[in-house]
Amino acid sequence: MLGKFIVIEGLEGAGKSTAVATVSQWLEAHNIPFIQVREPGGTPFAEALRDIVKGDWQEQVTPQAELLLMYAARVQLVENQIKPALAAGTWVIGDRHDLSSRAYQGGGRGVDSGVLQQLKAFTLQDFAPDFTLYLDISPAVGLARASSRGSLDRFERSKAEFFTRTRNRYLEIAAQEPSIVVINAEQDLPLVQADIQQALEQQWPE
Amino acid sequence: MLGKFIVIEGLEGAGKSTAVATVSQWLEAHNIPFIQVREPGGTPFAEALRDIVKGDWQEQVTPQAELLLMYAARVQLVENQIKPALAAGTWVIGDRHDLSSRAYQGGGRGVDSGVLQQLKAFTLQDFAPDFTLYLDISPAVGLARASSRGSLDRFERSKAEFFTRTRNRYLEIAAQEPSIVVINAEQDLPLVQADIQQALEQQWPE
Repeated sequence: MLGKFIVIEGLEGAGKSTAVATVSQWLEAHNIPFIQVREPGGTPFAEALRDIVKGDWQEQVTPQAELLLMYAARVQLVENQIKPALAAGTWVIGDRHDLSSRAYQGGGRGVDSGVLQQLKAFTLQDFAPDFTLYLDISPAVGLARASSRGSLDRFERSKAEFFTRTRNRYLEIAAQEPSIVVINAEQDLPLVQADIQQALEQQWPE
Repeated sequence: MLGKFIVIEGLEGAGKSTAVATVSQWLEAHNIPFIQVREPGGTPFAEALRDIVKGDWQEQVTPQAELLLMYAARVQLVENQIKPALAAGTWVIGDRHDLSSRAYQGGGRGVDSGVLQQLKAFTLQDFAPDFTLYLDISPAVGLARASSRGSLDRFERSKAEFFTRTRNRYLEIAAQEPSIVVINAEQDLPLVQADIQQALEQQWPE
């Protein structure tokens, strides 16, 4: 039987790592084999692109170059890691996937949604996650949490309006696509974990 | 007055470096200020992408990732180097540009030309070289020259049919676009240099 691809999405500081751990525990409890991957990254080639796209550069990084690198890293990850795992019956937990580009580059940076659709068609064809958990949090709360972890990367230093546009786009898309479940990530941690477990139980009842 | 953008194109071993030198000498002789750039590369960000795309990887490098990296490097170079130079009246000699993607990824790798047009529109809009010199050479002659220079990179180790498809696409496009001049690069060097100088004189008569 094919594995399933579960994606965790959300702004910086939304608690994606904790959510990945919660999903991992749920899969372990059900004796389901799985791997964890992150975007951008997850293969040596894609991790090299991650370093570039998150790095500090003296030159302006154009929105176009940023977007193309995200899709280049994504297609490497999908072809070389995710598809082989799913074909072998291993489930995959992804820390970010295509929805991040639609929210960050589409909503945040204002890249035309037609361009995003063309890039997706060129790189992923009809490949898509089985299930996405979007951890919803206000930019103010998320960035306060992220900055308490240490120094911020190029994305994390963006302006508040960028994250507000990104969050709004996440919510717009989630309202339209039934495979995306919105989790209130401003709740206390045990409540967030309980909501994630409940969402998994509903999606895959025993 | 705005500068002009002159591009040198051709297969590995066609003599692009020598052609760049010939164009440089012609510009110097006419007291025209210029810079030289190469693709992929030409800015710190784009040079980092060059290292990745030309590198040896254990994993399969997908044609999609390769193409997206070429356009990511190109838009960084155009926005951060070429456009500012041209605006300041400095001419630019480019070792490869968009035509390389159309020939190598389009002809050689078989990427759909509609995808290439979409990527060009997204990254470059209507920016294009003023003049392109395509150095035409058979793959056998070119690769013999390239391998005599030392070890071959990931592209140079491709199969002969790849380069035959690439050359054919170069010739097809050159036949349709008047701003591209075909130079017979299998001639002796002084004849190649004379043809390049003549092409420049015809394009920009005194």
